[in-house]
Amino acid sequence: MHRIEVGSNILQANEEIAEENRQIFRTRGLFVVNIMSAPGAGKTSVLEETIKRLKPAVNIGVIEGDLHTTLDSDRINALGVPSFQITTGTVCHLDARMIHSALHGFTLDGLDLLFIENVGNLVCPAEFDLGEDLRVMIFSTVEGADKPKKYPVMFHEAEAVLLNKTDLVPYSGVPLDELIANVLDVNPEANIFPTSCRTGEGIDLWVNWLTSRISAPRSARDAATATGG
Amino acid sequence: MHRIEVGSNILQANEEIAEENRQIFRTRGLFVVNIMSAPGAGKTSVLEETIKRLKPAVNIGVIEGDLHTTLDSDRINALGVPSFQITTGTVCHLDARMIHSALHGFTLDGLDLLFIENVGNLVCPAEFDLGEDLRVMIFSTVEGADKPKKYPVMFHEAEAVLLNKTDLVPYSGVPLDELIANVLDVNPEANIFPTSCRTGEGIDLWVNWLTSRISAPRSARDAATATGG
Repeated sequence: MHRIEVGSNILQANEEIAEENRQIFRTRGLFVVNIMSAPGAGKTSVLEETIKRLKPAVNIGVIEGDLHTTLDSDRINALGVPSFQITTGTVCHLDARMIHSALHGFTLDGLDLLFIENVGNLVCPAEFDLGEDLRVMIFSTVEGADKPKKYPVMFHEAEAVLLNKTDLVPYSGVPLDELIANVLDVNPEANIFPTSCRTGEGIDLWVNWLTSRISAPRSARDAATATGG
Repeated sequence: MHRIEVGSNILQANEEIAEENRQIFRTRGLFVVNIMSAPGAGKTSVLEETIKRLKPAVNIGVIEGDLHTTLDSDRINALGVPSFQITTGTVCHLDARMIHSALHGFTLDGLDLLFIENVGNLVCPAEFDLGEDLRVMIFSTVEGADKPKKYPVMFHEAEAVLLNKTDLVPYSGVPLDELIANVLDVNPEANIFPTSCRTGEGIDLWVNWLTSRISAPRSARDAATATGG
């Protein structure tokens, strides 16, 4: 076994536009959640279950990121929630500029809560601040217990980690205890929610936590964002 | 629903280095397979099962790409096969230059077949030619039947698509027929293999196809590469 270390550059320009987005969101009193995961981990399904539990008390909007198709946006619209589809072509993540551009075509008027569903990718989305208040990661338990070690960046950046598709745990052979230990090893502060959109396991716990997080005083939120982001 | 189209640039410089790699591989009579998938789809498990069936008749080497850890390289070494771990840090794909650099530290002497296991990512790896003869995609059936439509580039670029973890199909609720139809919709020429490393389903079929592909005359291979890449 041999090893090469390959360097990387982080786009600082993104941070400036993200800060502009953040100011726009704060001026409106809008709470913004960036949802990230690998493809097929269940972002849209979790979003659907979350929206069902928060409506109509909370006015929700959704920005969807995908390479192609409006399939996810169509699913959100079917719930009576306004959504805006960004199609990135071959770009593997959303960045602050894409969100900024979206705000010219998507009205935030009357919204309390904006979800941004990122492109399905366990790597790059975690590096691009969009101006959000909260970063949530959804991980399909089927993908294996070793993944927090192999792809630590997103696990480290997320304030909440939903370990989804727990209904498949008995069949996939993935040890949930080991997975949780590996998440905490990378991010000891992570709020972890084992969830299943098929059985409903953990969804209420997650939504209750999200609600309390939205209701937290702005000062506490700022502190969390400053330490987490 | 609204939509923005975001443009993308393809790095042409990568092609030049990929061509250099290809010449190195061809001079040695080495057949090179680039294995791509999202995280946790089972690349390393498929590789283990494939190696077990090809050894000792075929002399195999493996280049592993991961953000962090040597876990995959360790698994390959345990089979008595030489491997080289590239850790990319935050880079979400392998490129031709990384492979070129690896060749300075990893001897190809005596090898017949080189597998390159790409970073787990359903987007970017498909855009970077490494100089390989064959592109293989592994897709976890658990990720959903709609993914070929949402992430078409890799499905389009792969000559073979392994639909893995079929043992979970009865529990995941993902319709395999619809998934296969969506793969063929994006890539009518795809060689599709439903597989499970747990039950062994489809692995022999895949390995037999790979063996025949390796044994094909160089002229046929070149034609396939020219039309597929």
